[in-house]
Amino acid sequence: MKYIVLHEPLNYDGSQLQSLFSYKNFGLMGDSMSIFRGTCRVEQNEMVDIEDVLAQDWIYSEDMLHFIVEHFEMDLEKTIIRQRLLIATIKEELEKLGVTTLRRSGDDLYEEDKKLSVSISTLSPVSTLIHCGLNVSNKNTPIPTTGLEDLRIQDVLSFGESVAKHYCAEVTSMRLARCKVRGVQ
Amino acid sequence: MKYIVLHEPLNYDGSQLQSLFSYKNFGLMGDSMSIFRGTCRVEQNEMVDIEDVLAQDWIYSEDMLHFIVEHFEMDLEKTIIRQRLLIATIKEELEKLGVTTLRRSGDDLYEEDKKLSVSISTLSPVSTLIHCGLNVSNKNTPIPTTGLEDLRIQDVLSFGESVAKHYCAEVTSMRLARCKVRGVQ
Amino acid sequence: MKYIVLHEPLNYDGSQLQSLFSYKNFGLMGDSMSIFRGTCRVEQNEMVDIEDVLAQDWIYSEDMLHFIVEHFEMDLEKTIIRQRLLIATIKEELEKLGVTTLRRSGDDLYEEDKKLSVSISTLSPVSTLIHCGLNVSNKNTPIPTTGLEDLRIQDVLSFGESVAKHYCAEVTSMRLARCKVRGVQ
Amino acid sequence: MKYIVLHEPLNYDGSQLQSLFSYKNFGLMGDSMSIFRGTCRVEQNEMVDIEDVLAQDWIYSEDMLHFIVEHFEMDLEKTIIRQRLLIATIKEELEKLGVTTLRRSGDDLYEEDKKLSVSISTLSPVSTLIHCGLNVSNKNTPIPTTGLEDLRIQDVLSFGESVAKHYCAEVTSMRLARCKVRGVQ
Amino acid sequence: MKYIVLHEPLNYDGSQLQSLFSYKNFGLMGDSMSIFRGTCRVEQNEMVDIEDVLAQDWIYSEDMLHFIVEHFEMDLEKTIIRQRLLIATIKEELEKLGVTTLRRSGDDLYEEDKKLSVSISTLSPVSTLIHCGLNVSNKNTPIPTTGLEDLRIQDVLSFGESVAKHYCAEVTSMRLARCKVRGVQ
Amino acid sequence: MKYIVLHEPLNYDGSQLQSLFSYKNFGLMGDSMSIFRGTCRVEQNEMVDIEDVLAQDWIYSEDMLHFIVEHFEMDLEKTIIRQRLLIATIKEELEKLGVTTLRRSGDDLYEEDKKLSVSISTLSPVSTLIHCGLNVSNKNTPIPTTGLEDLRIQDVLSFGESVAKHYCAEVTSMRLARCKVRGVQ
Repeated sequence: MKYIVLHEPLNYDGSQLQSLFSYKNFGLMGDSMSIFRGTCRVEQNEMVDIEDVLAQDWIYSEDMLHFIVEHFEMDLEKTIIRQRLLIATIKEELEKLGVTTLRRSGDDLYEEDKKLSVSISTLSPVSTLIHCGLNVSNKNTPIPTTGLEDLRIQDVLSFGESVAKHYCAEVTSMRLARCKVRGVQ
Repeated sequence: MKYIVLHEPLNYDGSQLQSLFSYKNFGLMGDSMSIFRGTCRVEQNEMVDIEDVLAQDWIYSEDMLHFIVEHFEMDLEKTIIRQRLLIATIKEELEKLGVTTLRRSGDDLYEEDKKLSVSISTLSPVSTLIHCGLNVSNKNTPIPTTGLEDLRIQDVLSFGESVAKHYCAEVTSMRLARCKVRGVQ
Repeated sequence: MKYIVLHEPLNYDGSQLQSLFSYKNFGLMGDSMSIFRGTCRVEQNEMVDIEDVLAQDWIYSEDMLHFIVEHFEMDLEKTIIRQRLLIATIKEELEKLGVTTLRRSGDDLYEEDKKLSVSISTLSPVSTLIHCGLNVSNKNTPIPTTGLEDLRIQDVLSFGESVAKHYCAEVTSMRLARCKVRGVQ
Repeated sequence: MKYIVLHEPLNYDGSQLQSLFSYKNFGLMGDSMSIFRGTCRVEQNEMVDIEDVLAQDWIYSEDMLHFIVEHFEMDLEKTIIRQRLLIATIKEELEKLGVTTLRRSGDDLYEEDKKLSVSISTLSPVSTLIHCGLNVSNKNTPIPTTGLEDLRIQDVLSFGESVAKHYCAEVTSMRLARCKVRGVQ
Repeated sequence: MKYIVLHEPLNYDGSQLQSLFSYKNFGLMGDSMSIFRGTCRVEQNEMVDIEDVLAQDWIYSEDMLHFIVEHFEMDLEKTIIRQRLLIATIKEELEKLGVTTLRRSGDDLYEEDKKLSVSISTLSPVSTLIHCGLNVSNKNTPIPTTGLEDLRIQDVLSFGESVAKHYCAEVTSMRLARCKVRGVQ
Repeated sequence: MKYIVLHEPLNYDGSQLQSLFSYKNFGLMGDSMSIFRGTCRVEQNEMVDIEDVLAQDWIYSEDMLHFIVEHFEMDLEKTIIRQRLLIATIKEELEKLGVTTLRRSGDDLYEEDKKLSVSISTLSPVSTLIHCGLNVSNKNTPIPTTGLEDLRIQDVLSFGESVAKHYCAEVTSMRLARCKVRGVQ
């Protein structure tokens, strides 16, 4: 599994959550993760979470760190478990940088009642996909939020890369863990 | 998904990691989690992790909090991802009790270089299974360990129950998360 | 698995056979069944069964009892087996009401050569779906039909509910039946 | 899918519920169904349904019509759905012979409170398997039963063959039904 | 698995690589193979292989022998393995006609550096699909090619039929090979 | 996917066709291939192909080149397709060494009516496995055979390594081919 960190800004509008995004744009073949920074604004017709659509929620952030993950397997529940693990990994990487005030609730991260993250998993015709966005700034968000700036993360992209490194390594280690046990009765 | 907390001690020797353990012994039908406390001593011929067998590692603890999880699905890699999430959940539940010194490394929890946990996932003919054991005591273990006692967890079984509650709720929420998204291109 | 019975009429035109229909419209999350009554008119471009398209069959009924079932699994053959079981269940529920003159032929129900039902299963990007419609009236149908009225079913929606209750209970019981057997050689 | 009807008696003791039974004994390759007549006596250590083991139920019948079905697929829940359909098919074939007093409850057939059938599905290392037995005689059974004799079925094996013919044809038709629909959104 | 050989020319423009192509056009239900002869011209917006799209490759041949294969299973990797086997089978059938100068490189066939074939596999909403085209003529192709004419294949469609016969027989034999082995530890 | 070539002889008696053989003995984790040379003698009780057991065939060769392949996936039919591709690959590698007289028939290689190979695929509790053996010598085999010696292959293990290299590379390339296509309708 490969990742790429984009050093140019890229705004997320939902259309990045499509199959082969990382391959088409950055040449990453196979399971992959793209990390980039930019605004987040997803209109209703690009929303994937029908719960949000029904609730007429909208998603907006002036500055976010984005992760787009693609797994070339079709079991969406499996990718949702991976998504939760990704959120746990983000929290763990923040702990290494001294941030110990976060709690994970499903696929969300909070500091008290301020939300740090948005995240969704879905199916494409050929793969499963995850988007996770972490607020950098907490300005002008539709609900109370915190941002990586508030958590004193200096180098946002380099933090993103450390998450990617750990997530990709864990995907590999889980694949191998499957290959060294005998069955039981 | 249901769980049971045993208030009688039960020693773990590896034979509990078998299909239908919770159904046969406690009547839990379907995906389940059994929580109990007892010693941990697994002989070579009961070991499931061939890496441990090859390394001639052995597993021993005088007092452990045990989790046996059974998922009636046959994708071992998927259950290994769940196992990692279970380990992350244990860490998160300990954080709620004020323990902020742990780090997760794959399916292990450490405080500095002292190991808190053992864990394995495997396949039975009808299901996938997870065992996770947390040292209560750190005495006489073959490698440097820490225990829930060292972490000042007073009520070990009640801590086990809070983990079970969160894990079972998360399994349900992940199943439902799969049922409220549209696909993308 | 949950079901809902709509007491307002709803006409079926094929567009109801889409993913998340019951969630979007009635808030049912997860595997579900929606039961409603209304006309049935499916134009060629909404038809899902290509055999009907090729035969230039068309589907019309002035008044039908409709079942829309969604299973969040991607194995279409498995959902087709469930569909056959649903048809068998409908026949069995009619027997409880004294109707013993029906025969099942695959996914169709007949009284002699008069057709009671239409039914189809298909895949959406995130689930598998079943539509089954039972004629209430036999008037103006393109082929010889019988209807629930002819079979002296007084309360059509309440009959629909009894089918739903049994089908949903059976789905659950089949899931559990999978969790209480050992494997064999 | 092929079937064979044995004209020699064969007693069922549970050991017939094993992979490749029909191939090893009768040369049927691929998905198959074997039909035979004989006593049914399954000891505890051959029992596959752990619910029966826990309840210390035992299974005995002096004369039964047996069906052994093997599907070379590993999804046990899918084969359990097929098993329910097989039971519905048996009831439907009996209706063609004028027996209209039966009801299906899951994988059981009853006349009032008298049980006609026993049935179980399980996994082998290479396939899924179904056993279904229908009492011919109701004598000396541990619970109240009815038998095909009571239902005035004259030619038991020929009845078995008509069930096999319909079940095998339906398996084929369900496979093909999967191959003639377009997907929906 | 069935095949059909079209004796009328049919030009391939990519739109034939769609689900149910053989069923809609030629009435073949289930896994199938259609063989026909015609030009090959696939525009960018019909291209399925994103590698070709990114490379701005284009596909053109004045005269090709085409194979469209559909397998009603959703595991794309599995169908890609079948595709490689189809290519190996084409080479083997050519050997029977005395052509011993070809080599297979993945899903391509070459004579020295001249390409004989194009091929792609993909997913539809209900199936997996393979297209393979063999140049008959090598004229005006965008890269150096050889054609069945250069290889002295007289009767192109009859050659296509021999490939189809062997491929379909092998699909059947592989299905049965799965049904005659016991498992191992 | 990794491979190892053993330079010490190792006799094949069927017990090598077990899960984790390459991991336990040579430390290869994940999908793997072990290549070695030695006699081949498989007794009835080690035979995996029940067709051979029923035919009372036996397998014996004084000197064979052996391939043991393990894929950590549970779809046996998929591994059987891979097995056929392995056999095609062996034939292709022999062609590079000037051997153009072989034909493949399913999972067997022949020169005229002399058999070069034996091969079987099966399931373990945690993986699927392939054994393929190529006669080096044709002496004392129970049926007419040819051997790599007759085909003038000088360096048998080095030939085995070239097969392994190509097979492992093709497994990787097929995995990636799955990750660069868009779906179609």
